[in-house]
Amino acid sequence: MPSQPKGITVQFLLDCDPGHDDMLTIFLAAKHLDVVGITTVSGNQSLEKTTRNARRSVELAGLTHIPIAKGLPRPLVNEVRYAPEIHGQSGLDGVALPEPTVELSPLHAVDFIIEASHTYDELVLVPAGPLTNIAAALIKDPTLVERVKEISLMGGSMTYGGSTAAAEFNIYVDPEAADVVFRSGLPIKMFGLNVTRMASATVERLDRIRDIGTPFARTVADLVEFYRASLHNVYGLDGASIHDPLAVAVYIRPELFTMQAMNVQIELNGTHTRGMTVCDYRYVGREGKGIYGESGIIRGAEANAEVAVDMDVDGFFDLLTDTLALY
Amino acid sequence: MPSQPKGITVQFLLDCDPGHDDMLTIFLAAKHLDVVGITTVSGNQSLEKTTRNARRSVELAGLTHIPIAKGLPRPLVNEVRYAPEIHGQSGLDGVALPEPTVELSPLHAVDFIIEASHTYDELVLVPAGPLTNIAAALIKDPTLVERVKEISLMGGSMTYGGSTAAAEFNIYVDPEAADVVFRSGLPIKMFGLNVTRMASATVERLDRIRDIGTPFARTVADLVEFYRASLHNVYGLDGASIHDPLAVAVYIRPELFTMQAMNVQIELNGTHTRGMTVCDYRYVGREGKGIYGESGIIRGAEANAEVAVDMDVDGFFDLLTDTLALY
Amino acid sequence: MPSQPKGITVQFLLDCDPGHDDMLTIFLAAKHLDVVGITTVSGNQSLEKTTRNARRSVELAGLTHIPIAKGLPRPLVNEVRYAPEIHGQSGLDGVALPEPTVELSPLHAVDFIIEASHTYDELVLVPAGPLTNIAAALIKDPTLVERVKEISLMGGSMTYGGSTAAAEFNIYVDPEAADVVFRSGLPIKMFGLNVTRMASATVERLDRIRDIGTPFARTVADLVEFYRASLHNVYGLDGASIHDPLAVAVYIRPELFTMQAMNVQIELNGTHTRGMTVCDYRYVGREGKGIYGESGIIRGAEANAEVAVDMDVDGFFDLLTDTLALY
Amino acid sequence: MPSQPKGITVQFLLDCDPGHDDMLTIFLAAKHLDVVGITTVSGNQSLEKTTRNARRSVELAGLTHIPIAKGLPRPLVNEVRYAPEIHGQSGLDGVALPEPTVELSPLHAVDFIIEASHTYDELVLVPAGPLTNIAAALIKDPTLVERVKEISLMGGSMTYGGSTAAAEFNIYVDPEAADVVFRSGLPIKMFGLNVTRMASATVERLDRIRDIGTPFARTVADLVEFYRASLHNVYGLDGASIHDPLAVAVYIRPELFTMQAMNVQIELNGTHTRGMTVCDYRYVGREGKGIYGESGIIRGAEANAEVAVDMDVDGFFDLLTDTLALY
Repeated sequence: MPSQPKGITVQFLLDCDPGHDDMLTIFLAAKHLDVVGITTVSGNQSLEKTTRNARRSVELAGLTHIPIAKGLPRPLVNEVRYAPEIHGQSGLDGVALPEPTVELSPLHAVDFIIEASHTYDELVLVPAGPLTNIAAALIKDPTLVERVKEISLMGGSMTYGGSTAAAEFNIYVDPEAADVVFRSGLPIKMFGLNVTRMASATVERLDRIRDIGTPFARTVADLVEFYRASLHNVYGLDGASIHDPLAVAVYIRPELFTMQAMNVQIELNGTHTRGMTVCDYRYVGREGKGIYGESGIIRGAEANAEVAVDMDVDGFFDLLTDTLALY
Repeated sequence: MPSQPKGITVQFLLDCDPGHDDMLTIFLAAKHLDVVGITTVSGNQSLEKTTRNARRSVELAGLTHIPIAKGLPRPLVNEVRYAPEIHGQSGLDGVALPEPTVELSPLHAVDFIIEASHTYDELVLVPAGPLTNIAAALIKDPTLVERVKEISLMGGSMTYGGSTAAAEFNIYVDPEAADVVFRSGLPIKMFGLNVTRMASATVERLDRIRDIGTPFARTVADLVEFYRASLHNVYGLDGASIHDPLAVAVYIRPELFTMQAMNVQIELNGTHTRGMTVCDYRYVGREGKGIYGESGIIRGAEANAEVAVDMDVDGFFDLLTDTLALY
Repeated sequence: MPSQPKGITVQFLLDCDPGHDDMLTIFLAAKHLDVVGITTVSGNQSLEKTTRNARRSVELAGLTHIPIAKGLPRPLVNEVRYAPEIHGQSGLDGVALPEPTVELSPLHAVDFIIEASHTYDELVLVPAGPLTNIAAALIKDPTLVERVKEISLMGGSMTYGGSTAAAEFNIYVDPEAADVVFRSGLPIKMFGLNVTRMASATVERLDRIRDIGTPFARTVADLVEFYRASLHNVYGLDGASIHDPLAVAVYIRPELFTMQAMNVQIELNGTHTRGMTVCDYRYVGREGKGIYGESGIIRGAEANAEVAVDMDVDGFFDLLTDTLALY
Repeated sequence: MPSQPKGITVQFLLDCDPGHDDMLTIFLAAKHLDVVGITTVSGNQSLEKTTRNARRSVELAGLTHIPIAKGLPRPLVNEVRYAPEIHGQSGLDGVALPEPTVELSPLHAVDFIIEASHTYDELVLVPAGPLTNIAAALIKDPTLVERVKEISLMGGSMTYGGSTAAAEFNIYVDPEAADVVFRSGLPIKMFGLNVTRMASATVERLDRIRDIGTPFARTVADLVEFYRASLHNVYGLDGASIHDPLAVAVYIRPELFTMQAMNVQIELNGTHTRGMTVCDYRYVGREGKGIYGESGIIRGAEANAEVAVDMDVDGFFDLLTDTLALY
């Protein structure tokens, strides 16, 4: 199984709100990439719960060497908003995991991020929840922009929304934070609903994970089964959207994804569109060859993000399943 | 060639801003449907020019029995905005058509629409430009809602915009008028950029029209060739998007289109999204079978429009070419 | 009693939604100014009711020679909104006036306004309700701007609002219409809540009107008493705000008012401020001599309105009472 | 001279962006109140400069026992914006003060605020600049609301704005932070432009300060003279608005101010009103006895702030001058 190319040293900091798919992101990243820390944020559940779930996740997988730093308990401007209907009351329902004992970093997540930017030369931030911690770090220390290599995030959408017709949950929960991040000048990779809904963990795909046969794999499958059933009951989805892991999978198997450079703006003011990631794909197209043809004049605002427009779904689930088998 | 089914009497009023594709809409409708009038509006060019072009169009095709009523010279709230880069300085560049002599209706377009709603039992309004006239009629006489059967319009988009990243020209030019129409309670069929960009008149498709061999067909082909070249030069498109005729084609060959009921709201306030048609297709899908599966729970706001999500492009160009051959 | 100076011929068209204070506007204007028509609009009550009240008002005062033209039944974009808690279910409660018999003009108010602009050389429009008719006339015929001398309106506020913390009723009901008018380039005199709340018809001031002793004066006093009691019961006001007549009083006794040129914008988008008249009085002051001193640098956007900042309340009630005594 | 009443122990934390009037706030507070710290923020100048000016101020007045903690270098969402035209390139132009040597607190301002809320039982926060630090503390630790007694701030306006027609500088610079603070549930005293423009340090009033005769008083007078001249040159003001000290003066001589409880909302979205403090004073009045009369029904949203509506200007300048004489 290919992993991060030898000789390249890039470090990854996962900022997340576990959450079932956040947990998978940790597992996927830790076997292939140099994960230097996990920071937690309010989102799928309260900060207390997502932090507990981050600790439970590293203990489940034997990854307790990765430091965990607790972050911000609410969005910058919005009231708090959680997703218990999807991830359960604990934020990681499905299996009664033991109460975690691993200690937290003494640093606050915002300071952990800033510190890491000084420690590591090629730091990639991977936000899988609302962008509150990342924005707060950029507000506290604007020079962070000069020291972070890239942001690879799950959030937004090129097309339809989730929380509203136009807005996806992570951006909808904290649009101001997203706006700070997208206007920061940092290189951004964006994995939105338009691709993450494709990464659908059906019963068959979960059975493949369960068939690995290890207790770890069975536990993971049982946890994700709760999430799959929630999405089916609430939305009628056929499978569980494995949103967050795409933002790290692109560093392990970049060929799985079709990315397009485009301008992305965060709508803060719309009556019907607050929290929307307004992706200007008039001149780039969904299939990567341009709606407007090869000869198309690229106009409009300058690209500030590489947006995932297509993916190899089977290849992704092969990677995920093979990785879980390594535990 | 199939046409409007026998025994059904539905009347059509075309509200337009010719414009090359508006002209084709007149030609397509007049051979198959009972067109009771044409009303003109500011849009692709000034009201004076679009009215002149409506008159030139009916004279070119021998359709001078269709009354033409002149409408509003500007949007409700916005400043005027035209598209000379696409349709030329006359709004119908490409062939030097003779100065028209056919007289206009003594009625103002807004009053013509209201009058028609009293005269005809099954009146369908087909707006192919900004919705200013239609909105003004609804403002002047709110009981119009009770007497109009349906609106079938070209405008908006389920996905990307045209004038901005999020907004299509017709809606962008007069968002307030669009808001009045979409909240009116009238049944709406919407043909947005997501399908109209598919209806691409390539050089080959224009050659088929020219090959009809009549002077009329050659003139039409020459006019549309100007439009095609503009779109190529400005946007790099491979062919000319035949936007407006779709809104009448659906009454001649409904099987050409896949329509989905959904809620559509007009964004009036967004920093990046003003003039967007916010289509809630979370629960209906682009392919007509639901993103979220057959078992999906349909939730969200009630549908107020049937939105075209797919079309049979070749079937449409067969219809268009066959129709032009009848002149 | 001074009236419009001899030798100057200015014509006045009253656009209103009677309404008790609208009625007084008609009475005040008709004895001093050349009133060439009354147009009606939806506002204090439905269009049907405000039109009936306009007819009842001219019959009560023997002013049936003034033509009345019925206008628009709803705002441009907003839903309809009335003020029955202030003006009663009829829109002119307090006295059971006879059903009117005077005929309406065959012209629609919007066309009446446009026609009048061609007929009269020095036409002043006096809107005392939502600006829907005036905006619709400007939309239908933008050249109206060249033929109207001035607009003198009751609406908005320099300071606090009425319908909301920031917005006054007439503008709040149809902000888009107000925006069209204030950006039209027409000279505007604005009488907002900051002065109209000063024009408070207390019980004592109504007694002075009743003491005129004529049946007409008693009827007027009884009608306004209903309005005064409503405002007291609903808002706790000490007297009835005689809003609308200020917009004509300024032409009869200009010395009663202190006007300041300033820039006024209509807020269409604010979460808390939609419908606000944003008056830039940073550099002109409330007392007419400039907050920032005589030497103040006038900066900011160019003035588009003369806004009333102070008034002689006793002088105004003298004028009103003396005028009502003439009937 | 009366000072904080004996037996009451209330502690004050000044959050500021010195700035000439911020400096006076420090001087005024330190002689009368228990000032437990100064935190600095970006505003009148960059964070580096305002922090340097806070240090220079305490050194000038011999107040180096008050700890100073450096805060956030930019607003939450907005780009940075300074006021060099008023306070000069250093942010405290007018006298070449020595380079400061006093050390900063090791704590970040946001953590200093949170720490202080644990240390002191009756902590009053006095923000005199953009509300960025205060909002960030509320975001980082929402339980702060339970431990802070009150916020007394200079910012906003009941009436006209400063930076725009509707918005005052401190709120305009960081509206999102202001929104977080005003919706926090903390008791708020607000001193806006409507009163702070009254507190006008004319040449005569500055002469009274200079006439104290001490080197300290002369230096202060020279510094404020720079500020006065700037305001005169830029805005044509007769005197220097001594904005910020009002927010502490109210604790020393509460009788100098007329406060009114009312609802205040921060407008984030308006086209013309972003950054406005929308004060609902329809039912409370400017003179403290109610626009709508004693019997007025208080309606509208619940009060979330005590807003200064009037002040004793001479009494304030007596207090300020007498206090400066104590140094």
